[in-house]
Order: sequence, then C-alpha cells, then structure tokens
Amino acid sequence: MKIEQLVSQIHQKKSFLCVGLDTDLEKIPQHLLQEEDPIFAFNKAIIEATHEYCVAYKPNIAFYEAYGIQGWKSLERTMDYLNTNHPEIFTIADAKRGDIGNTSTRYAKAFFETLNFDSVTIAPYMGRDSVEPFLDFEDKHVILLALTSNQGAFDFQTKKIGGEELYKEVLRTSKTYRNSERLMYVVGATKATYLEGIRQIVPESFLLVPGVGAQGGSLQEVCQYGMAQNVGLLVNSSRGILYASQGLNFAGAAADKAKAIQLEMAVELGKLHQGS
Amino acid sequence: MKIEQLVSQIHQKKSFLCVGLDTDLEKIPQHLLQEEDPIFAFNKAIIEATHEYCVAYKPNIAFYEAYGIQGWKSLERTMDYLNTNHPEIFTIADAKRGDIGNTSTRYAKAFFETLNFDSVTIAPYMGRDSVEPFLDFEDKHVILLALTSNQGAFDFQTKKIGGEELYKEVLRTSKTYRNSERLMYVVGATKATYLEGIRQIVPESFLLVPGVGAQGGSLQEVCQYGMAQNVGLLVNSSRGILYASQGLNFAGAAADKAKAIQLEMAVELGKLHQGS
Repeated sequence: MKIEQLVSQIHQKKSFLCVGLDTDLEKIPQHLLQEEDPIFAFNKAIIEATHEYCVAYKPNIAFYEAYGIQGWKSLERTMDYLNTNHPEIFTIADAKRGDIGNTSTRYAKAFFETLNFDSVTIAPYMGRDSVEPFLDFEDKHVILLALTSNQGAFDFQTKKIGGEELYKEVLRTSKTYRNSERLMYVVGATKATYLEGIRQIVPESFLLVPGVGAQGGSLQEVCQYGMAQNVGLLVNSSRGILYASQGLNFAGAAADKAKAIQLEMAVELGKLHQGS
Repeated sequence: MKIEQLVSQIHQKKSFLCVGLDTDLEKIPQHLLQEEDPIFAFNKAIIEATHEYCVAYKPNIAFYEAYGIQGWKSLERTMDYLNTNHPEIFTIADAKRGDIGNTSTRYAKAFFETLNFDSVTIAPYMGRDSVEPFLDFEDKHVILLALTSNQGAFDFQTKKIGGEELYKEVLRTSKTYRNSERLMYVVGATKATYLEGIRQIVPESFLLVPGVGAQGGSLQEVCQYGMAQNVGLLVNSSRGILYASQGLNFAGAAADKAKAIQLEMAVELGKLHQGS
C-alpha cells in the first residue's frame, strides 16, 4: 500500500487507530472454543465489528507462532480474509524480525509475499544490511523499533552514543538506508514527550505508537507532540478492544471501544486542520 | 539440556561444531524435490551424515518461515527427528526474536515447548523484560546477539556508549538479568580479535560463533582468543557443509566437510588440555 492511500483512509474514517490482533485462546469468549478455528473466528468477528473505526490491523506474530502450525493457519486465514474483504486496510506483521542479508530477504518474502502484509516490524540491532532487504519491496514498509514502550527500553535505547541516545542514532542512521522513504518507526506512547525530539529527526515519517490505554499513554499528548502534516501516526490498541467483554456480545463491546477511540481521534484530526 | 551435558559431548566427540540447517529448496539436490517433504528429507540425510562430527544443529527459522505452513511442518519434523534419534545433541532455534514480557513468553513457549529446542537466539534491543521471560525456562538457553558477523554490526553494535561499545554494554547489562547463567552470546568470527575483550566480560559463557569459513573467519584465531576452560565455544558452519555437493552423494560430501572441521577442532581442544 502507498502512504497516500493510508493517509487518505485516515481522513475518510477520521481515525488513525490500529487494532492489535493479539489473539489469546485463554482470553477469548469460551463459546468460540467450539469453532473449528477459534482464533480465526474471533479475529473475523473483531474485524467485522471494528473495521469502520480503524485503518490498520496488527497481528502480533508471537501469538500465532505459540500455537505452531495451527497458529500459522489461523494467521494465514486472517490475512486472506483481510486482503479479500478489506484491502484498503493497512496490515502490520508485528514480528520484530532482523537477520543478515539473505536471511532477511526470506523473512521479507514470508511476510510481504506469502502472507501479503503491507508492513513488518524490525529490530535495528544488526544494522543496515539486516533492514535494507525488507526495504527493497515496493509499496511495502518496514516499521523499525526506535523507542519501545517497555521498561527494558532504558537498558540500551535511551543510553547515549556520542552525545545522543541510541534510539535517535537509530532514527538518523536509518534515514541513510536504501529506500528509507519506506521506513516507519515504533515509538512507545508512555514516553510521549520524547516525540518532540523524534519529530525533529523524522518530521513526516509514520510512527506506530503502542502503549495508549492499557500501558498508560495519553492520546492527546501523543498527538500534541507527534502529529505531522500528513498525520504520521498509527496509534495501536490491543487488549482494551479485543477483550472489552468475554460474553456473547464481545464483538459489540469491541466496536464500542474502537468507536470511542475513533471519536477522540476525530477531535485530534480536527485540530490538525485548524492548525494548517 | 544442561551446560555440563553439552561440555561432556564436546569432549567425547572432540568437536564444538554446530551445523546450521539453512535449508533452501533452490540449493538442495534436485532429486530430493520429488520427496513428499524435500526439506525434511534433506535435513534427515544431513543429520545422519554429520551427527558424529557435531554437537549442535541450528535451523535458521527464516528458511522455514519463508515456506509458510509447509515450512513449519518441515521444521517440526526435523525437531521431532532430532529429539527422538539424537537427544544428546544441542539444538538452537536461530530466530533472533525479542518482544515485551507476555509476548516473549509466547515465543519462548513456541520454541522451548512446542518445538522443544534447547536454545533460541534473541536480539537485545528491547532490554531486560524482553529477555528474562526466555530465561525462566530451566535447562533452556538464550543466545543473545552481542556482536554479529555482518557489515551492519558497525551501525550500532560497535558504537561507544559512555566509553564502551554497545555490544560490551549488552554483555555487561545482560549479566544482571534474572537467571543470567542461562545466557550464551552470538559473536561473529570475522572479528576474532574482539573475542579477547569479550572474554574479559564473560569469561566462561558459551559463545556461538558464525562466520567461520564462507564468511571468512579463522578457526585457530577464534580458539586462540575465545576458548574458555569449559571450551565455551560453538562454531557454526552452514552452507560450507550443507551444499558441499549437489549430486546424489551430497550427504557423503557434507560428512567429509564436517569431519575435516571436527579434526581441526580436535587439535584445538588438544591445546586446551596442554594449557590446563
């Protein structure tokens, strides 16, 4: 998908919500366990209930991989369903992969071709030749980990390298990578004020922001410090939407949660238009 | 597997060779493509031909993931075969995963329980709470990326953080993680002289060393700078062994290559005993 298509969808739906499909058999409504593929049945119901209010879906691959071959089947069915029924929606493989050249190309094929995702999250530790193979795919995107929302982010990401924090070095260095216009970045919302400094380095890049809601970030702060002229934000919510209810009406409850966030986002998008 | 079992196997076989199962349908002998599961057929033949000469097998997960569900089936069959027929051999999921707490636990279950690997490679960028969930599994091991063998390693890993390179900071910080005695580290052989400094920080930890052979590292140098009292080395070779021949006798050719490396390793292990 081209960035322009994503931006146009954001304005159309007045939403930059990404729904994280972290589907967990221990948390989904018990009646779904009778289905032949409970994970897919759950995802399908969530997608149907929420697709009006969001512009992206992000399955975290660990949740599927944990169930082995059955999990991969559920992921494949989910992606087939999304690409067939909602091709306008941006899809993110939250895989946090990264390996040397040839091997990265294989991961890229797995996610961009076999599963037909629009983007994949990548860890930057191995540097240029672990990232560029993913950037070779036209209309596909790499979402590079910059500043994550977990406590462990302070182990290395915020440590200073030559006067500047490692995550800023990651942002700057990655801008020199081949096809760097296909880069987006993961930036945790629990550190919203950091967004100001990040925008000085990558003023227009899309940022995928986890950690709003359950992990404690504020949507208003994220928008205040992080919104760009082209919006440039995808704000993720997973558990808060998926597990809003464990009853028969779980999908309706998920829709209500997604809609509530979308309405807040519409307000923030309104501010953007006033400002420009 | 306990470290002592690995060390004992090394002394018994006079080898610390790890064979990387980077199985590529475009490179395996063409006659195998008629098999129902060519990847497994190839792996099985390679394992039977080389298991006397090596102490570990390391499937790079990207090579399996690239083939979707079929690839995961081949990986599962390979692990079943290894765990049933050669349970004494150490197994490494070269997956380079890493995610926040709960999600890391899922990856850990996928590799340590569903597939029953002894160890998994992990990227350190997300810090403590992305690594510790893997360290909670008894007799399982995390092989943390420290200094990789690719050119991109110089993007961040060798940059200085407060006077010391990032990879050294990773080594030092990881030693404070819960159950850190279950940690091993990836250190590229193309930078053998770096091993001296690494051994000052982690004198006895096992190091997984890729990059000997095809990528240009020297076994003698690796041993000179990196061998510990408990050996502490697993040296990997993938393509040089797997694709020694593409003819009908590919397995015999692989055995010859593995045996040649094992003989060199026996010499190096002999030096260790003289020195102690």
